[in-house]
Formats: sequence, C-alpha cells, structure tokens
Amino acid sequence: MNLSNLQKRDLNHVWHPCSQMKDYEEFPPIVIKKGEGIYLYDENGKKYMDAVSSWWVNLFGHSNQRISQALSQQAFNLEHVIFANFTHEPAILLAEKLVAYTPKGLNKVFFADNGSSAIEVALKMSFQYHMQKNKPNKKRFLSLTDAYHGETLGALSVGGVGLYNEVFQPLLLNTVRAQGPDCYRCPFNQTPNHCDTPCISFVEEQLEKHAEEITAIIIEPLIQAAAGMKMYPPSYLKRLKELCLQYDVHLIADEVAVGFGRTGTLFACEQAGITPDFMCLSKGLTGGYLPLSVVMTTDNVYEAFYDDYASMKAFLHSHSYTGNPLACSVALEVLNIFEEENIIKENHVKSTYMREKASQEFSDLPYVGEYRQIGMVGAIELVRDKETKEPFPSKERVGYQIYRIALEKGLLLRPLGNVLYFMPPYVIKTEEIDKMIQLASDSIQEYFKNSSVMMRCF
Amino acid sequence: MNLSNLQKRDLNHVWHPCSQMKDYEEFPPIVIKKGEGIYLYDENGKKYMDAVSSWWVNLFGHSNQRISQALSQQAFNLEHVIFANFTHEPAILLAEKLVAYTPKGLNKVFFADNGSSAIEVALKMSFQYHMQKNKPNKKRFLSLTDAYHGETLGALSVGGVGLYNEVFQPLLLNTVRAQGPDCYRCPFNQTPNHCDTPCISFVEEQLEKHAEEITAIIIEPLIQAAAGMKMYPPSYLKRLKELCLQYDVHLIADEVAVGFGRTGTLFACEQAGITPDFMCLSKGLTGGYLPLSVVMTTDNVYEAFYDDYASMKAFLHSHSYTGNPLACSVALEVLNIFEEENIIKENHVKSTYMREKASQEFSDLPYVGEYRQIGMVGAIELVRDKETKEPFPSKERVGYQIYRIALEKGLLLRPLGNVLYFMPPYVIKTEEIDKMIQLASDSIQEYFKNSSVMMRCF
Repeated sequence: MNLSNLQKRDLNHVWHPCSQMKDYEEFPPIVIKKGEGIYLYDENGKKYMDAVSSWWVNLFGHSNQRISQALSQQAFNLEHVIFANFTHEPAILLAEKLVAYTPKGLNKVFFADNGSSAIEVALKMSFQYHMQKNKPNKKRFLSLTDAYHGETLGALSVGGVGLYNEVFQPLLLNTVRAQGPDCYRCPFNQTPNHCDTPCISFVEEQLEKHAEEITAIIIEPLIQAAAGMKMYPPSYLKRLKELCLQYDVHLIADEVAVGFGRTGTLFACEQAGITPDFMCLSKGLTGGYLPLSVVMTTDNVYEAFYDDYASMKAFLHSHSYTGNPLACSVALEVLNIFEEENIIKENHVKSTYMREKASQEFSDLPYVGEYRQIGMVGAIELVRDKETKEPFPSKERVGYQIYRIALEKGLLLRPLGNVLYFMPPYVIKTEEIDKMIQLASDSIQEYFKNSSVMMRCF
Repeated sequence: MNLSNLQKRDLNHVWHPCSQMKDYEEFPPIVIKKGEGIYLYDENGKKYMDAVSSWWVNLFGHSNQRISQALSQQAFNLEHVIFANFTHEPAILLAEKLVAYTPKGLNKVFFADNGSSAIEVALKMSFQYHMQKNKPNKKRFLSLTDAYHGETLGALSVGGVGLYNEVFQPLLLNTVRAQGPDCYRCPFNQTPNHCDTPCISFVEEQLEKHAEEITAIIIEPLIQAAAGMKMYPPSYLKRLKELCLQYDVHLIADEVAVGFGRTGTLFACEQAGITPDFMCLSKGLTGGYLPLSVVMTTDNVYEAFYDDYASMKAFLHSHSYTGNPLACSVALEVLNIFEEENIIKENHVKSTYMREKASQEFSDLPYVGEYRQIGMVGAIELVRDKETKEPFPSKERVGYQIYRIALEKGLLLRPLGNVLYFMPPYVIKTEEIDKMIQLASDSIQEYFKNSSVMMRCF
C-alpha cells in the first residue's frame, strides 16, 4: 500500500482510539488538513462530507468563524485560571444560560472535561448524597442493557455494550441491569407511536428487588446511541421518572450525545417534560471544538453537600482544567448561535425533509431492516432478513465495509455494528442532505452487489 | 459580606471543584478578568501572582502570545476531526516530539483529555495486556500510601489520600497498598541525599505476597504532589523499576503533575534513567491552556493488542475529543518554546536561586518544619513542633488560613493541608521569586502572630 509521508509517521507513533490498529494496514489513517462547514479536506485535497459530526460533536460546521473568533479573543485575554475559589465571566454566563435552557430545577452546574468525567461526577455525587442522607445501603447503580456512558472505569461499569466492557469485567462495579427498550424488535409487538411502554416493567422488576441498594438509574434519553442508535419514545422517560420518585432513586440523564438539539429539542428530556436529578452534557456543548462537560443538578442535591468544612461533606472532585475559560467561551458562543440563528426551528424543517427523503430512499432497499429517525439523528439498520429481522453476524463487519465504500465516495459515516447513521452538523443544506442520503444508499447497494451475502441470496 | 454582581451570579449557579461551597460565604470566589504572564487580575483590578501555576498547569505565563497565536491559527483551519481512522499534522508532530523527548522505548502515544482519563487508559491497557498474555490473575494494582492519581473511579482507586477517596470506598477497586517514601519523617532515619532507599522494602513485601495478582504499580515520580509535595530521590525509582522487572509487573509513571520540567528535567523519570511501561502526561502538556493528556507506552505493549480484528484484542477506548487538533497545536507550541528558549537550562538557574532564597527565608521561621525543593517545585511544611515534627490537626486548616492571608497580599498559593508550595510559571523573574518568597513568609508570620496556636506558645 502506498502511504504518504504523514501516514507513515502517524503509524509509527500514534495509537488511535477505538481501533484495531492492524486494520490500518489495509486502510491507513486519512490525514485531514482542513475543515470547513460540513466538509473535511485531506492531504490530497479530497473532500469528505462529515455526516457524523466527527463523533457527534460538531454543530455549526468545521472552523466556524464565529466560534473561532470567540476562542481566539479569549486566548489573548485569559486562557485559564484555577477554578477553586476563583471564577470568571465565561463560566458564570455559561452556567446561567445552561440553567435557563435545561429542564426547570437544574440550578447548579459542576464542570468537568469530557463525557466520561461528567458521568463519573454524577455517579459519585449521587452516591455521596445518599451516604450523607444516611442511606448507606445505596451503593449500586442501575442501567439499561446496551447502554453506553463512556470509558473510564466508573462510566464503563454502567455501560451495557459488551464490545467495550467485557474484557474489563473484573475491574467493574456490580451494576444492576434492566432490559432496555427495543422498539425495532419490540418484545411486546407494539409500535413506538402507539405504545404504553410495557417494557418499563423490566426496570420496575429490578427496582422492586433492588431499590434499597440502588442510588441512581442512568440512561441515555430517547436514543441509545452507541448501541446502534436505538430509539424509544418520551413516554418511557416519563414512566422512568415516576419510578425513580416512587422508589427513591436518582435519575441521571446522560445527554452527552443527545443534548444540544440532536433529538429536535435542545435537550431530549424536554420531550418527556421531566427533570432528572443529574443531567450530563458534553460533545455539542462546545460545538465540536473542545473537551468540556458539565453536570447539572438540583438545589436539593447541592444542599446535601453544603455544610461546615469540618463536617467533611464537600464534594472534593476536581480536574485541573475545570471551568476552562477557553472552552467556556466557545460554549457560550454556541448558545448564542442557537439563540440568534433560531437553530431549533430551522432544524425542524431540515429533519422533516431528511426523514421523508431517507424513508423513501432506504425503506425498500434489500437488507435495510428499518430507517428510523429522531430529530437530526437518522439510522439505517441492516439485517440479513427483513422479515425475521435477523442481524448480520458481527464478524462480517457489514457496517465497517460500507463505511469504507462511503469514504471512497467522499462521505464520512461511522458504523455501529450493522447500523449506519446520519448525525450531520446543523449547517447542512437541503441539497447536501440529498447527497448524503444518495451516497449512503449507493454505498450500501454497492456493498451488497459485491458481497458474498448477496451471492448467497441469488 | 459585600458581593459584586458577578460573585452573586457565580454563587447562584456554579458548584466549584474541590470546595466546600459554604466556605464561599466567608470567602467568595475571586472573579478573574485577565491573565498576563505570572499575574491574574480580578474584576477590581487587583493583581495576584499565580505561584501555583493555576493548579500546576501553566508553564509560560497566562495569555502567552506565542501559544495564543498557535491556537488561534489552528481554530480557523481545523478545530477538530474524529480521530478513529483519521489523523492530522498537529497530532503526528506532537507524537513524534513526545517520543523523542520521553525516555527511550516509549514509542507509542495514546491520546485522552485529562489526567484522570490518562490514568484510566494506562490501568485498562495494563490489565488488558495481561489478559491477552494469558495472565488472568493479574487483576489488581499496587499503589503507594498518600498517592494521588485523579478523580474518576479507576484513578481514585489507586489514590491513597483519604480526603478524596474515603467516602467512595464501596465503589473502589481493591488496590494493594505499600507504604511510600517519606523523607521528612523517614522511618529509617536516613536523609534523601545519603540513602540506599530501605523504604523500597515496603513495596517489595507487597510484591512478594501479591505479584501474581498485580498487573501494574503506579507512582508519581519524585514528588507525591497532592500528598503535600512529598519528595524522594531518584534511586527509589530505579529500585522500583528493578522490582517491576523482577516480579513481572508493569510500571505506570504518573507524570501528570511532575512532567514538563517541574522537577528540573523535562520528565522526572529521566533522573532515575528508567523507562516505565506507561507514562501519563497532562497539565503542563498544553502549557496551562487546554485539557489534553497522553499515555506513552512501549512497542511491547502495543504489539499485544495488534492482531486481526476478529481476535477482539483491540483497545476500544475513546473520548470524543481524542487527539483534538486545537489542544495538539498548543502542545506543539509548548514544546517549541522548550526547545527554542532553552527552558530547562534557564530553569536550572532560577531553581538554584529559589532554593537558596527560600531556604534562608523559611528554615528559621517558627512552625516551619522543612523547606524542600526539587527543580521548580518548593514546599514549606508547617508543623506544631519542629523537634517532634508533630503536624497541626487538619481541622485547624492552617494552610487554608495562610492561603487566605496571602491572597489578601496578592499572592496565589494553594495549600495542601499543612503544606504550602511554590510551583510558579517558568517565566517568573528573579525579583518576582524574591517577592513570592517574601509574601509567603509574611503571610505565615502574620497567621501565627494572630492565631491561637501562637497564643498557646507564649
């Protein structure tokens, strides 16, 4: 294989995330030189439409002028300051806006650096809260099958995707699991739009058994993303919140992936009209620029830690760059863009268009089991058999193969097993939505035309 | 208490890290408007010398022109791109430089976002390595008493500072502990400069008992920072590395706090002439600008994960912002400054000066048990009794009270229990070192003049 100088140098030293590095022998890393709007440009000038917002982070295009300007200005004024006993305007203004925009009651903002760290903060806060409320038995968490909440050991402990955590089991917490919603393969044969969420009973059963020892339930509202963009209706969240109140356990809403407009509303929890005890935000928080995360929580939680120093009730968690002014400035500008450019409303038009076009394009394709969409997230689930919904075996790497074909065509998808998805930056235009769908469809068809699966079928 | 508008707004919504928020009633957060060189300026124009580099991160001054310029330029070109199957020049160049500068043999670079995440990566990699080498019993880590490695549950599990992890014990891994070096209160009555590190026997004892089940030893080389800047000689590290080889366990060097010149050499491990299996870097990596971390490791470790995809041996860890181009550009410029401005050599002059001045100033002060220093890190340990080295009880918060007095005087210290320390940005000048030492000394004396401790003594 002909590698460029930079590709060789990359492979000499860089260990890439979430990668079997041996795959790079056949498919070396693409060296990106420039980003602009929804496009990335490689060292040969080839352009790629970033249909996954670079792992779900970008909102308003690459190298966005407004955001870059805000970042640059902040850099020459105050790049960082210790955030214990010190503060600064970007953090204060950001906290105010986040409190204003998130569900009512989430009045306190704790900063961290990435999604995993935010999850760890929420887990630790919930646990310490219950210790300080004299509930020493509440030492376990409840999470859903197929959940994904990050990679640090605490976050991984509440994850349910075996691919990521199986090998690490001996290092993980003993989490209580409840079967999650699965609308495509609903065990109750219901459809998401006409469903009284009987599957909430799986959670209820676990609560009946374990509530005394459970401190919090953690969920990804509306979309279990890493699971393959599994989508479920807001009514499920509503019932979950009721159960949390009934059984005296916290609800942690992990909106790291789904927050900031992805589901059509600024936050997914809005659609259920619920306020969780903790809401974790990251990714889109900085519009795809910088690692930053926050945990939003309630006055009730805050007050359980508020006491004389000697009581030793403080929450002694910190990261060096907590409340980083550069990242906060960027996040502020992101929220300014949401306000001033009427993004949520504009997205509604785009997502309606995307749904119509994609449903048309994909529904009748062979091996497409379902095209599903919530807000600005669309997913194509590929199956070996559309009737029985039998999945392709993971070792065939169907999604990965199509991803490689799509890249050839200039479309950056990123497969999740047998699921391909669109999660484009919000600056995508109608004609670009057309192109994205067309290229994805072409890639899928090209794969099956040439693959042994197709051969077996004819 | 008269609060400014911004202070009130901060306290309405911001939950600060590592803080009992009730303390802020008496001592509200200081609103910083601007940073320049070693100084921070608050909303009233008052300036503070940042003697702790804003939690040990800043190297070349606040709002450094060169670094801000590099950041700004990158922001308008490529702010971020997914780092799985994609790469970019700043990450490649940074990886090359890091490999060149770190101890020989650390050829592979895995990126993460903060110190805690880097530690989690190293722990997970070491564990998975041994699983894949058919050592399924190696499920535990060994760490030193008083160690600090971060706040996520994995990192917290290998920490030994009760203040941070005691309440979370039920959530933590069952780590093997060995008593660490304690040169100020040496149980063998040796002095650091003439010592054959008999205290390594504490580690050896644990290895004799547990080596079969231990995957890695994790340490902070030369300085146990959060423990109160406890310092120990390089010979200890040398012996530790030998023990790791002898007992077949990995060595993880957590250079998050001590890396990038703090100890006088670019990395602390250099002074012992050792190559650990994993080296974790963060904080100074971006000169105090942005959260970024790396785990450096060996070809041997890398190869244990390198196999066909179907073997499922890949290291499937990722964070959304892994390899963030903005942070990588900043880190590259930091290393350029080290090279072009001959920082390590310049620092040697400064640290020699600081040692002489500080030793003179503090050694004879009442209640100063010891002034100790390695490279650009100086620490003052306050004790109730200089003869017996009896510490002040933590509830007296001696360090905290002096920290508040120093802030009044325009000096930003940050106490660790009864220890005050200097870890200034490297751009500090000789006359500023004088001022820093003088203000710290004045603050200590003022506290004891007015405190009940002093009263009891006279």
